[in-house]
Amino acid sequence: MQKSSYKKILVPVDGSKYSNRALTHACNLAKKYDIKISLIHVIDNSRVIVFVSRKDYLNELRNFGKKVLEKATRMTEKRQVKSEQVMKEGKPAEQILNFVKKERYDLIVVGNKGLGSIDRFFMGSVSTKLVNNSQCPVLVVK
Amino acid sequence: MQKSSYKKILVPVDGSKYSNRALTHACNLAKKYDIKISLIHVIDNSRVIVFVSRKDYLNELRNFGKKVLEKATRMTEKRQVKSEQVMKEGKPAEQILNFVKKERYDLIVVGNKGLGSIDRFFMGSVSTKLVNNSQCPVLVVK
Repeated sequence: MQKSSYKKILVPVDGSKYSNRALTHACNLAKKYDIKISLIHVIDNSRVIVFVSRKDYLNELRNFGKKVLEKATRMTEKRQVKSEQVMKEGKPAEQILNFVKKERYDLIVVGNKGLGSIDRFFMGSVSTKLVNNSQCPVLVVK
Repeated sequence: MQKSSYKKILVPVDGSKYSNRALTHACNLAKKYDIKISLIHVIDNSRVIVFVSRKDYLNELRNFGKKVLEKATRMTEKRQVKSEQVMKEGKPAEQILNFVKKERYDLIVVGNKGLGSIDRFFMGSVSTKLVNNSQCPVLVVK
């Protein structure tokens, strides 16, 4: 995909320091190109839950997701960058890739790792899936 | 790594349409940030050669590498972007990562695939190694 400039940037956010770094990086790009950022958080409803009711678990994830998106929005505001929030439910990489395709993003800016030691594995896996399967360029921030 | 803007961009070039796309993308960034691009080509001297003498094979690779860098330079000139050429010998990902670390690049812009059906596998592998091991952000262009 050849673009002379970025018009639509998507940043997957999971509340980790890695996604915060990606967001800071994306804010710098957004300021340079004078565009807004879309922040996406995916509620991963595909995991097997054992110790709590599925309903309670998903509500917890949704509340966490809202907080993550709100914090990300404050980060963009602090940097004088406009943003919009997107929340999806499903398998993270799949949801993000479908959204990118549907909304024709020019760029995904993503951290290379995610939350915690176990989730880091999952989020790492999300980054890899985005790099391998996205139709648009993917910027992996360290 | 947090940077307010890009000052040093490195583009690995292998002569494939994928690295040409990455280079075009990098030229747009370079124009936006008013900086030059470094073009790097690595002579992969780590492969096992069977049918020709190693010396002849390496000379062929060096000649090919020069042509790739010259073509890449013409591409940047056409887009009014300044560039410099870097040629290394060794394992591609390792050489690129060492150079990035030594010269403190802000960004690597790389294609997601490389030359031919077999080499594509190798270059794909180079992109993956860069994404996984680089200390600076990596932009994977499709």
